[in-house]
Amino acid sequence: MALEPIGAVNALYPSLTVIVGARVRGKANWMTVAHLGVMNHAMGNIPQYLGISAHPSHYTNIGIREHGEFSINIPSRAMLEVTDYVGIVSGKTTNKSDVFPILEGELPNAPMIATCPVAMQCRVAQKVIVGEHELFIGELVATYAQPEVLVDGKIDLVRVDPILFDFRQMAYHALGERIGKPWNAGKALKEQRKNPQSAA
Amino acid sequence: MALEPIGAVNALYPSLTVIVGARVRGKANWMTVAHLGVMNHAMGNIPQYLGISAHPSHYTNIGIREHGEFSINIPSRAMLEVTDYVGIVSGKTTNKSDVFPILEGELPNAPMIATCPVAMQCRVAQKVIVGEHELFIGELVATYAQPEVLVDGKIDLVRVDPILFDFRQMAYHALGERIGKPWNAGKALKEQRKNPQSAA
Repeated sequence: MALEPIGAVNALYPSLTVIVGARVRGKANWMTVAHLGVMNHAMGNIPQYLGISAHPSHYTNIGIREHGEFSINIPSRAMLEVTDYVGIVSGKTTNKSDVFPILEGELPNAPMIATCPVAMQCRVAQKVIVGEHELFIGELVATYAQPEVLVDGKIDLVRVDPILFDFRQMAYHALGERIGKPWNAGKALKEQRKNPQSAA
Repeated sequence: MALEPIGAVNALYPSLTVIVGARVRGKANWMTVAHLGVMNHAMGNIPQYLGISAHPSHYTNIGIREHGEFSINIPSRAMLEVTDYVGIVSGKTTNKSDVFPILEGELPNAPMIATCPVAMQCRVAQKVIVGEHELFIGELVATYAQPEVLVDGKIDLVRVDPILFDFRQMAYHALGERIGKPWNAGKALKEQRKNPQSAA
């Protein structure tokens, strides 16, 4: 095994597939997005910021620019077909406002998909131009979840059953099994390296 | 089923778990990161930009700020213990430069983990302050992969066997099975909605 150069190929996958919602020219519009990320760790009183990236030519971007608001809806595997659909049909030519039942939340121009297991509303805090893309960094204002996906009051990804996106082999994947616990799986190695003589 | 408000809880998980590498005070250092994302779509001649977020107090940030370079290494499930380990032990108190065999690539201050299935080198193009965090947006300069994880010359996530991070239930997950094809899974629905009278 040895690493070999393969050119500047983006390998940062899988990423979570979401449906971004915005109000465009008075109507709800939806755009499938998998180029996104958590922008900070949000400790204490610092708000949580989430970033979504999209080419400015997207119809949804018009609404985000106008109102400074958007929603991030997390579809489950059961919604795979319609999730892909709203990504391949543009609001420029097709009215997508009737595709999903809509939930209105705190932000009036960030319509949410009422049938998604989880949905969030964000207010644009910063817009950063990255290459030719608009990176909208939104402050998370409100989160909504189906009670069925909560375990001990917290969102359980196994119940959400999200859709993961791979751009290299062009595939959607499901979430796999739990394999460990963060800030815990490496504890034994930490002790072992602190006291190398105690290792077998 | 109905969405109910649960407060401003970040639900943008799972995210890919990576190990960021940098040269700090002359030595390679490693930091586990799962708050990251693809920052643009990179069409044509536009470079690909990848973003990683970390609190400025992290030891690795010192090296990234000084040299403007970092690596993004994608560990496999087989590396779970050591991946978690380099996330719970700081370079401030522990020399981590001997934890992995190192591959030097095009960028001299972005050491890579030679045993990861995939590694990338990035040059910082923009730094954005988000809340209290530093978001380093790097231009992807070079990618390296183990030939064993390539299928038809392209990275195959099933072979990479990546570690996915969930901050809500505090769990690492494996990648699940393929469930569909992007820009394809929604085609039938597109046709059906174009010609509603042809639907059963």
